Amino acid sequence: MSNSSNLFPGVRIILVETTHPGNIGAAARAMKNMGMTELVLVNPYDFPNKKAIYRSASAEDVVKSARVVATLEEALSDCQLVIGTSARDRRIPWPMLTPHECGEHVSVAESSGKVVGLLFGRESRGLKNDELQKCHYHVNIPTGEAYSSLNLAMAVQVLTYEILQARLGEDIPKLKWDRPLASSEAMERLFEHLESTLIQVKFHDQDNPRQLMTRIKRMFSRIQPDEMEVNILRGFLSAINKLGKTNES
Amino acid sequence: MSNSSNLFPGVRIILVETTHPGNIGAAARAMKNMGMTELVLVNPYDFPNKKAIYRSASAEDVVKSARVVATLEEALSDCQLVIGTSARDRRIPWPMLTPHECGEHVSVAESSGKVVGLLFGRESRGLKNDELQKCHYHVNIPTGEAYSSLNLAMAVQVLTYEILQARLGEDIPKLKWDRPLASSEAMERLFEHLESTLIQVKFHDQDNPRQLMTRIKRMFSRIQPDEMEVNILRGFLSAINKLGKTNES
Repeated sequence: MSNSSNLFPGVRIILVETTHPGNIGAAARAMKNMGMTELVLVNPYDFPNKKAIYRSASAEDVVKSARVVATLEEALSDCQLVIGTSARDRRIPWPMLTPHECGEHVSVAESSGKVVGLLFGRESRGLKNDELQKCHYHVNIPTGEAYSSLNLAMAVQVLTYEILQARLGEDIPKLKWDRPLASSEAMERLFEHLESTLIQVKFHDQDNPRQLMTRIKRMFSRIQPDEMEVNILRGFLSAINKLGKTNES
Repeated sequence: MSNSSNLFPGVRIILVETTHPGNIGAAARAMKNMGMTELVLVNPYDFPNKKAIYRSASAEDVVKSARVVATLEEALSDCQLVIGTSARDRRIPWPMLTPHECGEHVSVAESSGKVVGLLFGRESRGLKNDELQKCHYHVNIPTGEAYSSLNLAMAVQVLTYEILQARLGEDIPKLKWDRPLASSEAMERLFEHLESTLIQVKFHDQDNPRQLMTRIKRMFSRIQPDEMEVNILRGFLSAINKLGKTNES
């Protein structure tokens, strides 16, 4: 499949001997959410199945175009980088990636034209040792100690999330504020106005007036207001001033 | 609940008006995998339900100890930091976090003793505007453009994953504050007092009074005041109120 929903045509999500068709559908949705559509199913236990369609929500296209193969060898035949999900402790140590590193490896490899296979094992027991040994790297999703077994589709979600984050890279859109931030000068004038209003309404700490003003300044500094917000605050203060003047007259 | 499976006793995962009980179970599993057990359900559509237990796998304890409340206010009453999940585009911009930044904020806040609420909206339409306005920050999970709607439990998985990653990698110096932060309830009372005072001093935008109040609330949310600071602000408002009353008499 090659269309606008596929940001990573070179990335294949490969599910090995999945038992529950619902997990296939949920994995398809997770993939598509993160801009991936190439799903390969190695010897699935129960597929096609309407539960897969149901759980995929709007990723029905990914489920329907999934490639079903009989063996892992077939799934991997043209992959140039293979990464397998794995529990932490394996007898033979293997080059290990964190999910974040995995995202970077996959994104970089894919954008330089490689075909990447990301392998997920069975719900009950993951990938077998001989399957793990077909991988260049293993990746493990750190968990709390009390319960370390992620749902299969959740693992797909976390790793595909990290791949997309890596691709979006350093230019993740910064917060776009709708107004320019207030200048230091505008803030100084705001503080003067605030202080004179505090005096006008006779609100001050008799014992320690300066600490009160310091605390108030500290609060309003934390707002980091934009220009319109300073205008709103100044308008509020002016309304208080007017009330006070009416009072005096 | 306070046991070895709970690495984050101060973090509450709050699901608002969840439709599908299966999503509650899947969210519970996702949480427990990442070392969190405090689940709060605001007005769930269909709970308790055996589907929630089934999908939770070995997180049945989290589902069974979930706190069910009628309103979001109740869920947030003692939260000191509130972060809500949100789609990217909202009319009034709000302080926005990436999932990674969210993980760091939550982890640091929790380890310095704060109670943190992480809000997830309805499957169909997320959080409403008034619910989003109760948040200090919004967090958005970046997706591919073709399909941006993550399954609810998947969103819980990604954000709790980022919280645990932040904790595992944490060497961020803690912010030491001299006073406990104000609760959501104290903030609600502050907003009510602020609103009535704005009316008293006759300060409102004739053309768009509600947007003005939203902007003002947004500003004061950004302060994240401690208890003493709320007292100072309330004292200031009371002084203004008194000035107004003298004026009337």
